[in-house]
Amino acid sequence: MQVTTVDLTALGRAAKEASRALAVATTAEKNAALHAIADAIERHADTILAANAEDVAAGRANGLTEALLDRLLLTPKRLQALADDARKVADLPDPVGREYDQRTLDNGIRLKRRTVPLGVVGVIYEARPNVTVDIATLCLKAGNAALLRGGSETLRSNIALARALSEALASVGLPEACVQLIASTDRALVRELLRLDAYVDMLIPRGGAGLHRLCKEESTIPVITGGIGICHLFVDASADLDRAVPVIVNAKVQRPSVCNALDTLLVHEAVAPDFLPRVASALAEHGVAFRADDIAHALLVDTAGLDLTPAGPDDFDQEWLGLTLSLRVLDGLDAAIAQVHAHSTQHSDGILTETPAHAARFLNEIDSAAVYVNASTRFTDGGQFGLGAEVAVSTQKLHARGPMGLDALTTFKWIAEGDYHVRS
Amino acid sequence: MQVTTVDLTALGRAAKEASRALAVATTAEKNAALHAIADAIERHADTILAANAEDVAAGRANGLTEALLDRLLLTPKRLQALADDARKVADLPDPVGREYDQRTLDNGIRLKRRTVPLGVVGVIYEARPNVTVDIATLCLKAGNAALLRGGSETLRSNIALARALSEALASVGLPEACVQLIASTDRALVRELLRLDAYVDMLIPRGGAGLHRLCKEESTIPVITGGIGICHLFVDASADLDRAVPVIVNAKVQRPSVCNALDTLLVHEAVAPDFLPRVASALAEHGVAFRADDIAHALLVDTAGLDLTPAGPDDFDQEWLGLTLSLRVLDGLDAAIAQVHAHSTQHSDGILTETPAHAARFLNEIDSAAVYVNASTRFTDGGQFGLGAEVAVSTQKLHARGPMGLDALTTFKWIAEGDYHVRS
Repeated sequence: MQVTTVDLTALGRAAKEASRALAVATTAEKNAALHAIADAIERHADTILAANAEDVAAGRANGLTEALLDRLLLTPKRLQALADDARKVADLPDPVGREYDQRTLDNGIRLKRRTVPLGVVGVIYEARPNVTVDIATLCLKAGNAALLRGGSETLRSNIALARALSEALASVGLPEACVQLIASTDRALVRELLRLDAYVDMLIPRGGAGLHRLCKEESTIPVITGGIGICHLFVDASADLDRAVPVIVNAKVQRPSVCNALDTLLVHEAVAPDFLPRVASALAEHGVAFRADDIAHALLVDTAGLDLTPAGPDDFDQEWLGLTLSLRVLDGLDAAIAQVHAHSTQHSDGILTETPAHAARFLNEIDSAAVYVNASTRFTDGGQFGLGAEVAVSTQKLHARGPMGLDALTTFKWIAEGDYHVRS
Repeated sequence: MQVTTVDLTALGRAAKEASRALAVATTAEKNAALHAIADAIERHADTILAANAEDVAAGRANGLTEALLDRLLLTPKRLQALADDARKVADLPDPVGREYDQRTLDNGIRLKRRTVPLGVVGVIYEARPNVTVDIATLCLKAGNAALLRGGSETLRSNIALARALSEALASVGLPEACVQLIASTDRALVRELLRLDAYVDMLIPRGGAGLHRLCKEESTIPVITGGIGICHLFVDASADLDRAVPVIVNAKVQRPSVCNALDTLLVHEAVAPDFLPRVASALAEHGVAFRADDIAHALLVDTAGLDLTPAGPDDFDQEWLGLTLSLRVLDGLDAAIAQVHAHSTQHSDGILTETPAHAARFLNEIDSAAVYVNASTRFTDGGQFGLGAEVAVSTQKLHARGPMGLDALTTFKWIAEGDYHVRS
């Protein structure tokens, strides 16, 4: 892994060259590199933790919130988990080299598709230094060179991790440029990276809405946008209300800071008078505050112990990322579908119902990466979906949608073998 | 099909709404629309041909080349072919609604993926009015609304075709906004379209390198770039030279104006003294002119009847789109692979060889959309590859690569069905 401060074009060129070596590396060679990375992280744990302590101290001096400092923090346990994860990536099936759609054309040409690495993957991320190792190891397994731009607040940690990765790659004879860190806090480099399409095949932003918008606006490299979830659950008139309460509580409070947490609860007017006070009381026990439309507000205003505010015009377009929930009462499935179409970011949306026809309509008509019947939205996750790993969660529609596993870090080529065939 | 001159945001919104109706249309409903389109084209043939005649006359007056006028021209036969093609699209399998990766997670949630339409597809194209019908019908079959921006030189033809499509959609009860033509020659609208990411899910430019670059630079919508092919064939020392000649002639001259035609011929030095004069003479019979590197030039300078020029520094980075061919003599497979890496646009590249290990290395190491052994590059085509239709040819790596069939106009959603499941 190379650490540098300057010439992005040179980094891009080196990444492209390294990607050619990686593309023909065997599964065993790639797995050896992953084990070497795990070993190097363990071997250099003290150095990495010392660098991280400096980042945390500087972050505290700069007034970072406790939440952000926690994301930044590496503990011995967290570092060990990173090493363990690298070994787990080695255990995953190699996504490269799978051949499919084999056929012999009428003229005798043998045609097939083969999965191959994308080439060079650029990743722009914030705060968490574990992303450096996560992404580097997943890219490596899929045969891609990685060009990483981490947040300035984790620069010391990332440089220390980068040195360990660099040593590991060299030890197994792979080019160090397989993983390169853009080790500079110069923000202009981000815009420069976004236009490095001559060398970078895919760009993954991992951060907030602003970063995703910047990449969408400025990047000449294909971008996987995602990670922003305005998630809905609709409680239909036929839902099992007793069982609906814990699902909604789970979707909202199990981990409120993440993209698949619930943002807006929609309730059928037929059950709202009974159900809303019950679910609101259950949520209030976990500290949830409410932004309620007129009907929901009227139904809840007499319930004790609620933090209840009339919903403002923008409250149904919020990814709350915290213990706030928007509430709306609707007159049926059509209105619920229209509400989701108008306000969802197409991440994760669900219906709670005992009416199969309503479940089917919701699944058919809601165009989100993950659509749910009678389950919490919190399941949208590579691990939960059994993908073995998660690169990112895509909310766009090209190439990858929803949780992205190793497969999403590959493309394919068409292979045609003939006997001196000509087209007539 | 609606024809308009102005409010692109309104068009985008209408397209998004229409796409929701199309997404739940049955295969039978979509096929009925395709047959209605074919009928309407036949019914309005006179009007369409008259409008096209005006476009052709105006084009001639504006000094368009004969080649461009021919691309612009609709004849009764060509128009009939368009109607026939619409009926053929009806006969293709519906790419939407296929379910795969079904599994029951350990917690009991039933998870699967289902193919769904992309939503709204924007297409920017030049000259040929047949693209209007081709793309509209393929988008329709895949359940997508289409937003079309054709070239100004075909505006009258496109408006006439648009009216026929509009009538056909209305006759089967589908929203006319399923297919919308941006019926204006205002070039500012192209840039505006490129930023319509709130409504358009995929953008397909069909035109020259300049259009693709513009889209890559300016679009906030995911773009499928492609259609630019700097294509190579490498004649290895072991190639069957007698059989290699017709393959190279086919790749170069069968249709020299298209993206999968040969641009650069690489020849192993061991066979170049014998082979180059033979292949060059055969190509010269078809009017091919040569740009030869020093060695190739020396080997060909005494051959009679050749249009031979020393290759300039840029001649190996040309998509010739005509009867010119670059020639280079190399000392083996490594040099050939390096040459392709440095100069290919990753469209279609091939090797002619009787050495299986060389074929395997070429297939493994050349990272192009289509890689060939012992066949003409001209086969890179949706029809030739058995896809039933071709939307475009992608030379980028995300989502679609090489010839794009109907599948490339779909995405998928994750569908999770539970029994009031919560994440622990």
